[in-house]
Amino acid sequence: MLIRDATQQDWDAIWPFWHAIVAEGRTYVYDRDADEERGRDLWILKSPGRTVVAVDAEQQVLGTAKMHPNHGGPGGHVATASFMVDPACAGRGVGRALGEEALSWARGAGYRAMQFNAVVETNTGAVKLWQALGFHILATVPEAFDHPMHGLVGMHLMHRFL
Amino acid sequence: MLIRDATQQDWDAIWPFWHAIVAEGRTYVYDRDADEERGRDLWILKSPGRTVVAVDAEQQVLGTAKMHPNHGGPGGHVATASFMVDPACAGRGVGRALGEEALSWARGAGYRAMQFNAVVETNTGAVKLWQALGFHILATVPEAFDHPMHGLVGMHLMHRFL
Repeated sequence: MLIRDATQQDWDAIWPFWHAIVAEGRTYVYDRDADEERGRDLWILKSPGRTVVAVDAEQQVLGTAKMHPNHGGPGGHVATASFMVDPACAGRGVGRALGEEALSWARGAGYRAMQFNAVVETNTGAVKLWQALGFHILATVPEAFDHPMHGLVGMHLMHRFL
Repeated sequence: MLIRDATQQDWDAIWPFWHAIVAEGRTYVYDRDADEERGRDLWILKSPGRTVVAVDAEQQVLGTAKMHPNHGGPGGHVATASFMVDPACAGRGVGRALGEEALSWARGAGYRAMQFNAVVETNTGAVKLWQALGFHILATVPEAFDHPMHGLVGMHLMHRFL
């Protein structure tokens, strides 16, 4: 598996699983019917942000991450990131590799911490992965996410210093 | 004091104190050198967001607030808001009146909660005001704000149900 900067061309490979994950409405606070143009605007970032893809030996896109400052100005030293793995590629360590890449990028870019603002508490795989990568749950915002199966569930604020 | 929807014309009255507050760098996670166009883009919101001004009997702008969904999609039932009071008008209850207006708007628009993501912990006047209006500190993100006098200080995540 290789992780490299995403190009606008990669978007064609990202969109099918990006759309499937967002439309499912279980993990992301994006409009579930976001169209392809809106998705690209949300996901493919310019500097100082960065978007990457994880690809296999045949250059198939397995997953993607975006990373950027969580706030501007006097809050610009804390990074944030978002991750999507093609469900067809689950269980291959793609999420972990993307998480490690995001941390490495943030350290290299001089950020002092990374913070996730909206980790849905029922997304236990993600919660466990971020904890394994050193993140702590600072708070759980109660009833902040309307899950299609579980109703109103909490969203974790997760944080780690770098 | 009257609170009403802000117009693009009101921006001329907002900008001087908006700029002074942001440039001071003590309370907002905006780039301290944000110019007037950037400021207007950040502050004057379209639906489903809303921007208001508090004005006195002579229609002088005393302060302003913006309010909008904190997240999209399955997180769209939680509102957030931001507030600025002209320092020349401090101590007249403008912040409280704007806070009450934001809560009233959010209730009327069907939001279930309001959340502030980035309340600088040294901004004790704001922290006390939001607590008086029913908000609780859910977490303090450590060292998340680079204060020009105090160095790295925490930012509170504050929340209340509506």
